Amino acid sequence: MVNMLLVQGANMNHLGLREPEHYGTTTAAELDTLLQADAKAHGDRLEIFYTNIEGEAMNRIYAAASAGVQGLVMNPAGFTHAGYALRDCLKAVALPYVEVHMTNIERRGIRSVTAEVADGVIFGLGVQSYVLGLAAMRQLLATRCGSAG
Amino acid sequence: MVNMLLVQGANMNHLGLREPEHYGTTTAAELDTLLQADAKAHGDRLEIFYTNIEGEAMNRIYAAASAGVQGLVMNPAGFTHAGYALRDCLKAVALPYVEVHMTNIERRGIRSVTAEVADGVIFGLGVQSYVLGLAAMRQLLATRCGSAG
Amino acid sequence: MVNMLLVQGANMNHLGLREPEHYGTTTAAELDTLLQADAKAHGDRLEIFYTNIEGEAMNRIYAAASAGVQGLVMNPAGFTHAGYALRDCLKAVALPYVEVHMTNIERRGIRSVTAEVADGVIFGLGVQSYVLGLAAMRQLLATRCGSAG
Amino acid sequence: MVNMLLVQGANMNHLGLREPEHYGTTTAAELDTLLQADAKAHGDRLEIFYTNIEGEAMNRIYAAASAGVQGLVMNPAGFTHAGYALRDCLKAVALPYVEVHMTNIERRGIRSVTAEVADGVIFGLGVQSYVLGLAAMRQLLATRCGSAG
Amino acid sequence: MVNMLLVQGANMNHLGLREPEHYGTTTAAELDTLLQADAKAHGDRLEIFYTNIEGEAMNRIYAAASAGVQGLVMNPAGFTHAGYALRDCLKAVALPYVEVHMTNIERRGIRSVTAEVADGVIFGLGVQSYVLGLAAMRQLLATRCGSAG
Amino acid sequence: MVNMLLVQGANMNHLGLREPEHYGTTTAAELDTLLQADAKAHGDRLEIFYTNIEGEAMNRIYAAASAGVQGLVMNPAGFTHAGYALRDCLKAVALPYVEVHMTNIERRGIRSVTAEVADGVIFGLGVQSYVLGLAAMRQLLATRCGSAG
Amino acid sequence: MVNMLLVQGANMNHLGLREPEHYGTTTAAELDTLLQADAKAHGDRLEIFYTNIEGEAMNRIYAAASAGVQGLVMNPAGFTHAGYALRDCLKAVALPYVEVHMTNIERRGIRSVTAEVADGVIFGLGVQSYVLGLAAMRQLLATRCGSAG
Amino acid sequence: MVNMLLVQGANMNHLGLREPEHYGTTTAAELDTLLQADAKAHGDRLEIFYTNIEGEAMNRIYAAASAGVQGLVMNPAGFTHAGYALRDCLKAVALPYVEVHMTNIERRGIRSVTAEVADGVIFGLGVQSYVLGLAAMRQLLATRCGSAG
Amino acid sequence: MVNMLLVQGANMNHLGLREPEHYGTTTAAELDTLLQADAKAHGDRLEIFYTNIEGEAMNRIYAAASAGVQGLVMNPAGFTHAGYALRDCLKAVALPYVEVHMTNIERRGIRSVTAEVADGVIFGLGVQSYVLGLAAMRQLLATRCGSAG
Amino acid sequence: MVNMLLVQGANMNHLGLREPEHYGTTTAAELDTLLQADAKAHGDRLEIFYTNIEGEAMNRIYAAASAGVQGLVMNPAGFTHAGYALRDCLKAVALPYVEVHMTNIERRGIRSVTAEVADGVIFGLGVQSYVLGLAAMRQLLATRCGSAG
Amino acid sequence: MVNMLLVQGANMNHLGLREPEHYGTTTAAELDTLLQADAKAHGDRLEIFYTNIEGEAMNRIYAAASAGVQGLVMNPAGFTHAGYALRDCLKAVALPYVEVHMTNIERRGIRSVTAEVADGVIFGLGVQSYVLGLAAMRQLLATRCGSAG
Amino acid sequence: MVNMLLVQGANMNHLGLREPEHYGTTTAAELDTLLQADAKAHGDRLEIFYTNIEGEAMNRIYAAASAGVQGLVMNPAGFTHAGYALRDCLKAVALPYVEVHMTNIERRGIRSVTAEVADGVIFGLGVQSYVLGLAAMRQLLATRCGSAG
Repeated sequence: MVNMLLVQGANMNHLGLREPEHYGTTTAAELDTLLQADAKAHGDRLEIFYTNIEGEAMNRIYAAASAGVQGLVMNPAGFTHAGYALRDCLKAVALPYVEVHMTNIERRGIRSVTAEVADGVIFGLGVQSYVLGLAAMRQLLATRCGSAG
Repeated sequence: MVNMLLVQGANMNHLGLREPEHYGTTTAAELDTLLQADAKAHGDRLEIFYTNIEGEAMNRIYAAASAGVQGLVMNPAGFTHAGYALRDCLKAVALPYVEVHMTNIERRGIRSVTAEVADGVIFGLGVQSYVLGLAAMRQLLATRCGSAG
Repeated sequence: MVNMLLVQGANMNHLGLREPEHYGTTTAAELDTLLQADAKAHGDRLEIFYTNIEGEAMNRIYAAASAGVQGLVMNPAGFTHAGYALRDCLKAVALPYVEVHMTNIERRGIRSVTAEVADGVIFGLGVQSYVLGLAAMRQLLATRCGSAG
Repeated sequence: MVNMLLVQGANMNHLGLREPEHYGTTTAAELDTLLQADAKAHGDRLEIFYTNIEGEAMNRIYAAASAGVQGLVMNPAGFTHAGYALRDCLKAVALPYVEVHMTNIERRGIRSVTAEVADGVIFGLGVQSYVLGLAAMRQLLATRCGSAG
Repeated sequence: MVNMLLVQGANMNHLGLREPEHYGTTTAAELDTLLQADAKAHGDRLEIFYTNIEGEAMNRIYAAASAGVQGLVMNPAGFTHAGYALRDCLKAVALPYVEVHMTNIERRGIRSVTAEVADGVIFGLGVQSYVLGLAAMRQLLATRCGSAG
Repeated sequence: MVNMLLVQGANMNHLGLREPEHYGTTTAAELDTLLQADAKAHGDRLEIFYTNIEGEAMNRIYAAASAGVQGLVMNPAGFTHAGYALRDCLKAVALPYVEVHMTNIERRGIRSVTAEVADGVIFGLGVQSYVLGLAAMRQLLATRCGSAG
Repeated sequence: MVNMLLVQGANMNHLGLREPEHYGTTTAAELDTLLQADAKAHGDRLEIFYTNIEGEAMNRIYAAASAGVQGLVMNPAGFTHAGYALRDCLKAVALPYVEVHMTNIERRGIRSVTAEVADGVIFGLGVQSYVLGLAAMRQLLATRCGSAG
Repeated sequence: MVNMLLVQGANMNHLGLREPEHYGTTTAAELDTLLQADAKAHGDRLEIFYTNIEGEAMNRIYAAASAGVQGLVMNPAGFTHAGYALRDCLKAVALPYVEVHMTNIERRGIRSVTAEVADGVIFGLGVQSYVLGLAAMRQLLATRCGSAG
Repeated sequence: MVNMLLVQGANMNHLGLREPEHYGTTTAAELDTLLQADAKAHGDRLEIFYTNIEGEAMNRIYAAASAGVQGLVMNPAGFTHAGYALRDCLKAVALPYVEVHMTNIERRGIRSVTAEVADGVIFGLGVQSYVLGLAAMRQLLATRCGSAG
Repeated sequence: MVNMLLVQGANMNHLGLREPEHYGTTTAAELDTLLQADAKAHGDRLEIFYTNIEGEAMNRIYAAASAGVQGLVMNPAGFTHAGYALRDCLKAVALPYVEVHMTNIERRGIRSVTAEVADGVIFGLGVQSYVLGLAAMRQLLATRCGSAG
Repeated sequence: MVNMLLVQGANMNHLGLREPEHYGTTTAAELDTLLQADAKAHGDRLEIFYTNIEGEAMNRIYAAASAGVQGLVMNPAGFTHAGYALRDCLKAVALPYVEVHMTNIERRGIRSVTAEVADGVIFGLGVQSYVLGLAAMRQLLATRCGSAG
Repeated sequence: MVNMLLVQGANMNHLGLREPEHYGTTTAAELDTLLQADAKAHGDRLEIFYTNIEGEAMNRIYAAASAGVQGLVMNPAGFTHAGYALRDCLKAVALPYVEVHMTNIERRGIRSVTAEVADGVIFGLGVQSYVLGLAAMRQLLATRCGSAG
């Protein structure tokens, strides 16, 4: 069993209502249901946290690290462009981190300032970016435990 | 009758006290009185929201869009420089948006990252930038309704 | 009563025929009628001057300043990109200056070299950019007279 | 029969006298004779217009478009570097446009600001650049008529 | 059943022997065995092609597209930096494309010129980048078939 | 007696736990004890405020300025990279400001956007950066009082 | 009679199947037929060589120069972006060279690294770019022979 | 006796009225009187030509070169920033050319695009820049005649 | 007791006479007196060396390192902009180094090429920058001795 | 005895025939004779490999490394500009590598992307660059053996 | 009578022997004789100082300012490129300063870092640049005395 | 017999003591002994000159050129970064010049401003860079004499 935190960055609360030509029509609530089902199927614990305030995301990540969460999956979304403080936070906590984006940010000319501190990055695959992100995290944690055991 | 939200971005709370050579001596309270009078004269509903936290501005804008506000006028102020998440928010909601600045930001070498998603931009005219911003919004909404009717 | 000059820069003669997806279908003649009506309604004197030659615009502005025109509204249009001589002219004459553009030049990646010497800038609002530009000029002149009186 | 305008931009009046290591020794008059002979041989109508003033080139192009000229061939010459207003003019009129340069502007480190709005560009081939430019225009017009017929 | 091509770009033949601090100690042969096993487990057909010559990769991709391969997974590896011709090839063929990298290329300051034309991109997860890449391709193809059926 | 505010910017809450090769092993609590002892020894009043939210730092600074705090010492930390709104806030309030960083930000290639509005800047000296920052502030205030007296 | 080599660079084998909105629907085979007919009509010898491998293009050009080919026409296509070795090859052989592109590469923001070593460049005219390229080469060779004779 | 043309570029007609903190209070007419007196004292012929239109300056320079003027002194003024066509004109005519500016353009961050084709450049010395410019031209012409004689 | 060298870089000899709006009116002699008093009060040995020649500063620093000086405080002053050889010298000797500037160099747009090799940097505090620089050096040396003891 | 591979990059096959003002008149065959004589004189084994295809160079280098070649000398020539895949290959194999160029590439404004991974670089000395390159390789191998022995 | 210092920067000692295609064949000694004759003819005192060491030039300028020299003429020569310390020196002393260069530094792509602090700049006129520089200085001093008297 | 000068630029006096991970442990004295032995073995005259002052290096080079030295070998060391005056000196004297660096400056991101004026450049080979530099100079001088004889 794995204990993961998924952070949904700025504007993800509006998913499904926002630029559907980029993000599709799945709403935030539907995405949560889908991902919780995926977590349940794997016997994992998954908490999902939405915020539009960068510092709140950081507060949540520090709290998770203290509370024993094992891995962080995050779509930095609106924080992607200038989330330098968030990037410093990710360096400060020792949590494994997989970054996901629904769209191909390279094609859209967006550079993620947090990607450089990620263990893995997955983008362009819509809702599947999240599903693969959770899978990647499980694998990361399995490998680390294995090498430690 | 038009229903508008005016967002006053970072540091606008300090208006009148702050760099009067740039921003004059009208205080935030005096500006609010002036703009509410203008709204009342036109039979409009105007809510004014001040915040120093970018994510709070976004939360307020999402709430306004849900609550039937028809148009957004905003002085991004301190968010002008790096408000990328705010810009994504403005793209995500479908509200008509007019951006205003009291000073000539071009002359001061400031580039607004939110201006590109505005319907109209007005700057350099001090308190009048707001008054013209409200006028522009009324006209925008009238045109859209007209073309829809 | 206010005495204003409106300069229409390069290619504005072709308005209404030119890239209607950007500039709409109002022709130059229709725009002039609309703005003269607006001026008449406010008891103002408005002269409108079209030219494709930057130096002619400058000659006209110098002549206007000598002839007692009180304020300049201009859409630099084709001169927006490289009108450095025009910018120097605007600095040289002491006329209040409001710059207008029909389209959102920031969104189109166009930087105005004359904007930095304007008292105010209004863009993105189509024909309304002109109407608001005249209103801004009236207000500017009223304020200056008031503070001098 | 095809009705074409050839615009010779800034400094082309001096052809044959100017930097012969770049432009050869054919004079403007000799070039005109050569190109009129080529036009006559194809049964075309060709007007050639020289100017050192960018706005005059624009005025001439607008007039040609109104007068039924079917295609524009132009060597922007001195306007190549900063002819942004001219570029906007070319976008505004709907004329097919072939741009020609006598020299290899890429080798000389010159970037043409008007090339991006051309249907075709031919450079580096001296006087033949013009002859090929007229041929390209005939072909363009033939294709468009054919596809419309 | 899915029919996929995996292209291993320049220097991947040396995997396991090359910079193990970046790429680990799994050899190319071991990786192939692992991925073929994964393909077999899903009932898929997977061909793996190694080359150090960019044009050979392109030839192989064109041939695959003609031969009915349904999806392309590729680690451009040494072609990542300047594989512009390869990028044009990917645009030219209509194959779904998932790009994978074993390392976090963002952290290493490497920009992939092919990433912008990918449907999805996965990097930083070592050998798992490939496994997830195949999974992503299966999902992509399932979605497209589903939406077509 | 001097009344000072010390703001600890984003991620400083994690001090001692975070990247000890950069920041050492002194925790935030130990640092506070040390600095309060230093303040007490000088007979000063010192308030220390930690936040991960840029706008909260601004709110706190505005409140301090209203409440009679005489000087601000701040480690912008995570706000260093893009704290433009915070910089505007520092310009808006008239408080003397000394900026401190524990590490040599120049060596790490970090540029502080707030440093340009500081009265003094001290970096690279670990915990001593704070001690010297308080000393610098005392001196600044003594000089200003002296010159005013 | 003229003896020419036409090199079709990377991805041109896919012509007619590839991005028809840019390149039209004429296939490589149809283009060859058209150009061979044009060569035959002028009594010329024309060899057409397709390759996706830059070094093969260079090998072919060196061989052609040794075998008495008089002129090179080339669409560098996929080699346009980074074909520096190819550019050095063109400098090394003394063959007259005309570069052609079917599309307006300036409009698409593509810079050709080989254009600077061409005698002439023609782009934007689709299949006609090739026809005009052969014409330009005939003219170039005629002029050189004439000046030598 | 020397026969010289002095071209006064864009906005110089306004001299003495324009930004006196930069250009002093000498008017254009007073400057002309001073320079004609200087010419007369040296037995030279001096024509002074003012224009705000770049192409007119070029026309005048071509005419002067045909009419036997021996040297050109010019303050490009408003043409300094983007006078590329004027620069090409200066290269095309063979006239000795001395460029003058009243102010220190380096200090003001202005780069002259015409300076690179000048024989000599003098700036920063107000009205004396012109007087020294005429002296430099006399010396240039004397040297050239001397070396030819 | 601590043995320190203070190097005063280019133009510091002119202190108090030079740009007093930046550097105040304290002369070099007065500053020396003040700092020697400070050193004496702490029982330290302090040598102060002024030079306008970068290589002389380096010679002095190498000599000091050989003669047992324990720490270097330096205001690189005129060497700040391009003192690359000096920077290499600082890397070559193992002396602890604290860099000081009287003014806020960040605000003046000056980048120090030597700052990256400093243990600590203090700027903007006028004469106090030196006093704090000596204090920082004492602390640095105490810490290093302590950790070694 | 030393076993070395010399790779001659793109266009070196044409040596002596190509741009003799840069590369002299020694042909590839003459150079090979000269270098083999030098190798023989030192009792070394030297293989020389020419290719215009970057991937073939890489294939040859991987093969050499497997076959016991001890050191690589290479003139990347046409691969100098964009040979990123080749650079990665050089990092991947553990062979000592000395890079040579006949001309002063710094003077010609050429940056070698492979130079950063070389043990030594020698350029500007024509044919002697190769002779010194072999000497450098012998010395490198002697030192390494010596330190290992 | 005027008391002037002429500083000849790095490499000017070699004048006449150095790159005569740029600097002519007049030697340093011949230039000195010519300029002293010019000074004598005007009843001025002129000292000429050559140095290859930037700091020595600064020492000499500080000494001159103390000794009552009224004006500085300088050809920074080799110090032109990176003489930042020299530039600071020129700002620090209050001497009028005219900068001269024998060649057109703009054409050669050289930017003078000291030019921005000059009262006047003269370049491109060979030995006459010095003669005009002295004349400019005399005029500057005359004007200042006149305005003070 | 050959007469050579070796200049050791800034900080080379500290060789063997300075950053041994880059420069090894051979001291300046040991290096001199080694190189003088090498010179003696070839019957050459070699003078070695160390300086930290750029202008002194220039003075020495001018003196050497006057005194009949035939060739210059130099490690500009600390002058590598900004030795523009030194570069001009190297252009001014006609001495053959070979530049050497002990380390791979390309790998360290250092650009030599003097390299462009060298006949040959050798770097990355530690002490052997000097030995090869002397060999290269001997060869250069032999070739030049040979071609003159």
